[in-house]
Amino acid sequence: MDHLQARTARTWLATAVAEARAGLAEGGIPIGAALYGADGALLGRGHNRRVQDDDPSMHAETAAFRAAGRQRSYRGATMVTTLSPCWYCSGLVRQFGISRVVIGEAATFHGGHEWLAEHGVEIVLLEDAECVALMHDFIENNPALWNEDIGE
Amino acid sequence: MDHLQARTARTWLATAVAEARAGLAEGGIPIGAALYGADGALLGRGHNRRVQDDDPSMHAETAAFRAAGRQRSYRGATMVTTLSPCWYCSGLVRQFGISRVVIGEAATFHGGHEWLAEHGVEIVLLEDAECVALMHDFIENNPALWNEDIGE
Repeated sequence: MDHLQARTARTWLATAVAEARAGLAEGGIPIGAALYGADGALLGRGHNRRVQDDDPSMHAETAAFRAAGRQRSYRGATMVTTLSPCWYCSGLVRQFGISRVVIGEAATFHGGHEWLAEHGVEIVLLEDAECVALMHDFIENNPALWNEDIGE
Repeated sequence: MDHLQARTARTWLATAVAEARAGLAEGGIPIGAALYGADGALLGRGHNRRVQDDDPSMHAETAAFRAAGRQRSYRGATMVTTLSPCWYCSGLVRQFGISRVVIGEAATFHGGHEWLAEHGVEIVLLEDAECVALMHDFIENNPALWNEDIGE
């Protein structure tokens, strides 16, 4: 797989951030994600839907994966997410052989991205200030909802 | 958590098998699951819906988890599944702190249940002949669809 250009990573992250902001505007948990194919085409995008749909299974990454529909292979694909993927979403990436994960930030929540790196997934951690601010403010104002979303 | 009685495990597995058979009758992948609460109440049940809904995110375990709706805690809960959970579904169990997994069989597919055991999840592996036969026949007749469902 070609090395991901920093500009491309930032452009892709903007899609995930737009999803996170859409979720926040709906009263939901502000985490967004997008799945890009090996050729750079957007396959699917989505955001956490726990509150909006009463659906605990729709994390941002699973929503983007679902929106992409059935795919024969995820080789070369990139999952872009505003926040370090939890074990549920890390398991998704590993099981389906998604090659790369671009992460907005891992400061407010530290998921399974190191485990993914150990298993050959390329991890691009951007430490994006906008993503940190989104989650920091949300967690501060909604601690119970956040703990529910990560099973704590 | 109390030790699970063998009869209870078999009764719960029957719910998951009924889901698997419902999925097969719909033309889908015959894997079923059910989530039981700490008090033994059925919280949700479901089956793989890749074919039926064109939805790659709905494995049997995620479908049962979704059907259970929002829960404040999964402490003491049991995920019952006809087949060893893949990394995606194993990640779900770990992230949400589901205490126990009852597995119909791990002969036709070996997922992440040993990883879960290492992280404190109680694993009950039943080696159920009916579950083995269901998956063995399905994989033999639908190898491409099965590989798609596990990202291989």
